[in-house]
Amino acid sequence: MDASLIPIEDLQFLLRWLDPVQSEDDRETVTAILNLAGQLASDAFLTHYKDSDRTEPELRSDGVHVLPVIGEALRAYADAGFFAAGFAAELGGLGLSSVFSSAIFAQFAAANVATAAYPMLTGANARLIANFGSPAQIDHFVLPMIAGKWFGTMCLSEPQAGSSLADIRTRAVADGRDGLGECYRLAGNKMWISGGDQDVSANIVHLVLAKIPHPDGALPEGTQGISLFIVPKILPEGTRNDIAVAGLNHKMGYRGTANCLLNFGEVEGATGWLVGEPGRGLAQMFQMMNEARISVGIGAAALAIRGYRLSLGYARERLQGRHPGERSGPPVPIIEHADVKRMLLAQKAYAEGALALCLFCASLVDRDNDVDASALLALLTPVAKTWSSEYGLEANDMAIQIHGGYGYTRDFDVEQLYRDNRLNPIHEGTTAIQAADLLGRKLLRDTGALALLLAKVSECAARASDDHSFASHGRALSTAWETVEEAVAIMGTAPTDRVLDNAVPLLSAFGHGVMGWLWLDLALAARDAAVRGEVPDAFARGKGRACRYFFEYELPKISAWLTPVAAMSDVCSGAATDEF
Amino acid sequence: MDASLIPIEDLQFLLRWLDPVQSEDDRETVTAILNLAGQLASDAFLTHYKDSDRTEPELRSDGVHVLPVIGEALRAYADAGFFAAGFAAELGGLGLSSVFSSAIFAQFAAANVATAAYPMLTGANARLIANFGSPAQIDHFVLPMIAGKWFGTMCLSEPQAGSSLADIRTRAVADGRDGLGECYRLAGNKMWISGGDQDVSANIVHLVLAKIPHPDGALPEGTQGISLFIVPKILPEGTRNDIAVAGLNHKMGYRGTANCLLNFGEVEGATGWLVGEPGRGLAQMFQMMNEARISVGIGAAALAIRGYRLSLGYARERLQGRHPGERSGPPVPIIEHADVKRMLLAQKAYAEGALALCLFCASLVDRDNDVDASALLALLTPVAKTWSSEYGLEANDMAIQIHGGYGYTRDFDVEQLYRDNRLNPIHEGTTAIQAADLLGRKLLRDTGALALLLAKVSECAARASDDHSFASHGRALSTAWETVEEAVAIMGTAPTDRVLDNAVPLLSAFGHGVMGWLWLDLALAARDAAVRGEVPDAFARGKGRACRYFFEYELPKISAWLTPVAAMSDVCSGAATDEF
Repeated sequence: MDASLIPIEDLQFLLRWLDPVQSEDDRETVTAILNLAGQLASDAFLTHYKDSDRTEPELRSDGVHVLPVIGEALRAYADAGFFAAGFAAELGGLGLSSVFSSAIFAQFAAANVATAAYPMLTGANARLIANFGSPAQIDHFVLPMIAGKWFGTMCLSEPQAGSSLADIRTRAVADGRDGLGECYRLAGNKMWISGGDQDVSANIVHLVLAKIPHPDGALPEGTQGISLFIVPKILPEGTRNDIAVAGLNHKMGYRGTANCLLNFGEVEGATGWLVGEPGRGLAQMFQMMNEARISVGIGAAALAIRGYRLSLGYARERLQGRHPGERSGPPVPIIEHADVKRMLLAQKAYAEGALALCLFCASLVDRDNDVDASALLALLTPVAKTWSSEYGLEANDMAIQIHGGYGYTRDFDVEQLYRDNRLNPIHEGTTAIQAADLLGRKLLRDTGALALLLAKVSECAARASDDHSFASHGRALSTAWETVEEAVAIMGTAPTDRVLDNAVPLLSAFGHGVMGWLWLDLALAARDAAVRGEVPDAFARGKGRACRYFFEYELPKISAWLTPVAAMSDVCSGAATDEF
Repeated sequence: MDASLIPIEDLQFLLRWLDPVQSEDDRETVTAILNLAGQLASDAFLTHYKDSDRTEPELRSDGVHVLPVIGEALRAYADAGFFAAGFAAELGGLGLSSVFSSAIFAQFAAANVATAAYPMLTGANARLIANFGSPAQIDHFVLPMIAGKWFGTMCLSEPQAGSSLADIRTRAVADGRDGLGECYRLAGNKMWISGGDQDVSANIVHLVLAKIPHPDGALPEGTQGISLFIVPKILPEGTRNDIAVAGLNHKMGYRGTANCLLNFGEVEGATGWLVGEPGRGLAQMFQMMNEARISVGIGAAALAIRGYRLSLGYARERLQGRHPGERSGPPVPIIEHADVKRMLLAQKAYAEGALALCLFCASLVDRDNDVDASALLALLTPVAKTWSSEYGLEANDMAIQIHGGYGYTRDFDVEQLYRDNRLNPIHEGTTAIQAADLLGRKLLRDTGALALLLAKVSECAARASDDHSFASHGRALSTAWETVEEAVAIMGTAPTDRVLDNAVPLLSAFGHGVMGWLWLDLALAARDAAVRGEVPDAFARGKGRACRYFFEYELPKISAWLTPVAAMSDVCSGAATDEF
């Protein structure tokens, strides 16, 4: 396995951290599967990382063609059973937990995030139909996706509507019923469809949000009028559905993932089947969106880890300069320089912290019959998505910086990691949308989830107080969360039109608060694991070091972000258009 | 002139801010020249912004070829006299001040930073030879560069040495003397040479750092052994010098600037002429490096301004979503959303603030016979270079974010601005190198410059105290600088091997302190200018708004950065290699 991928020991440690009662038998299976995933990621995904950046998907008269090696990688992924990883045995799945399948996905994303996007979307699509679809729909559409023969997409945005789904105009007109359910004819344009077309899978299952018009032809207003439809590229009878690829987006990075503008129903209307009840489309789609948000976070974390490991390798080998005060003697490896260590440690804190947060969220998915776990998951999803995306990118920025001029050239992977990762704060809901979700839909609507989180924070801070190396961090964490709580309380008093004025700085502070808690918890867990002989001493010292970095260099930023939040500053929202 | 370039009014305001006694006559000339520059930048530089990104320079058997339109643009730039802008009339120059020629350069950099890099380097090269070269060298090499017929480069780095110039191995062996001075034969490899070869100018004047070996053949150690040589591509007799292009770097951005690996003296040794005395090479080269550092800052600021203006235009036109609490009615322009305003205001504060800082530095260059001005310039150069580069990139990141998914596609310029700007924290000395310079060479060696800066800060804070809209900012600025001063004093007590442990966080805090001072000064100046009727009221309100943004959202970060500095944290420097 390539040394720049996620070390198996890191994934093992995280899985044990999240599920300490795992039996010895399970551990062996886990290790075997992690090794298999690491090897396949190394051999089939990493190998075309640069090629699929250089040679973008191409739109020809018969549809989109991707680099053949992408297809080969995905067939190998299917053959190894990874499409089936997170699905129940009765659906032909392997029945792995969400947290375990997420750890596996992280490895493939580290190797090639653009290729890994196809199975990521396919899995989330299949899970949505498995949850809300009819048995016939599950049989026809889900089983081939779990087998990795068909791929899936999510079709939400439209050119005029972007993130504002209430304004979508794709219409779905009833057209009888067959064995797969209520038939509809769909017409409309869908934008930013990842995997919207490709020549790898035998069929593509589009999950499309559309509106069923009123009898007078008008579309229902708002998000309540949105329904969800399954619209396959190839119809059950083997003919092509009425879906045209109107264009491919040429992106800064993430290029291996074909991103399409799809026109549905330009001719006779695209055939689709309603999923569940009319008007429930957005609520159902949120399951897929939330899963995709965690996956975006995992992808961002994985790119960050790879950049960290590449720059670590470079810093160990590259000889340049001397220690401060020394003027002669041979040059030293640049890892000896304090600022290179700072950039490595920051990357470690960002990258490993982000992965831990996302896997923690995945572990909450596994406890979805537990009301508290679901509430905590809802609260943390926007944080996991955003923090990983923002700091994953920041980590990749530092990976470039450690490489100096070389990092800015396309001869090194770090510049591509940075370009790939720049997508993550945008897709599946921008940072501003996540911030509005955290504050408007979560924190201010239901204080229960915050209370659950604060209980975990207190419990961790109390545990830290027993250990003199971490006691001060425990106190700092409690103080930081007091200021976050205060700011949230102040926002609770803001008038509706001012609530979101500073939602993004609040999300920044909240995210760092969450990460402070997790780093302290990780450092304590690693210390305990070292005492039990489960991890080497250096591993625990490394986690402790990253924790200290986070508390000394990062946690103080929380009050800086909260200054304008707590003051309910209207500097931004009050700006007149002519002042720009 | 394209609306995304730097508004003439902004440049006029900055020039008046820096030179309030400018006569009315001068103002008209200034305006005419700014208009000419804006028009040429718009017509000849901006027009190939995308093309020169798509089609990179190409190395063929006869050398490097760049896109022909780059050559056309540079010939038009030469014809308009801009190569001559900053040079004295006796050299054939226009005799414009450094601050004015920098403002002109900013406009071309905004339009196309990669094309603007050729004249930027040529000017800095010519100025160095004009300062340190012999009359014959000036005659032969400088005059054609001022005319824009020959271009210049700086050849410092080598593959094994990177930023560590003490370790360069290029050797120069004496080989007689002619009318151009002491001749040498040079041999060595130079890396990262911007404009190292191209097919635009009739000749290329390389300024090369090399070492003259001792009689036993050994190279002198350290930087004291470095000398400076003029090594032209074409020799005076019209034949090619012994310089081979060994390769082109393929970069993430800035692609129009051919960046080469040059091999000097592979055959009989490249012919070069010594500039000044042996062993003075690095000291002389610092003039060019310092000028280039300010220019890098200007380029970064210019890219930031263009991204700001593009995203401002997009935000005014793109309709999406509604105000908080509204559920129906037509979508609003996204500039109505508070977080879009936040990202626009932050860009304005970063971009316009960075340009103001760099032009302030250029105004100090104009006062180079004033000891205080030179000391202040030395102190502020690493800040101008770094702050503009780091926050210019941050601004471009936000420009992408405002565009949403569109900003991530190559159909929009903002993604290219971001890729272009990513170079700026690397070249002409990385952020870490600037931080070491600020702390190690400036702040701790001579407290005089800091005292000069603090006097300016106090004067500005005192002026602000008379105005109730800015009085609180004046106090905040004084408090912020007290914490910066304290941190600097603490670093003065650190042992040599620990001094640079947290140099970068200190530079971050110092940079924000400088920018707080400048924003307050700019806001006060704009208010006064509006009272005098020199600028529209909205212009002054805009500057005041950006100032308030900076004080409420940015200034609080200073204490966060200084926390580990003041604690002399060894979390980073103390990390053992096995902890990563």
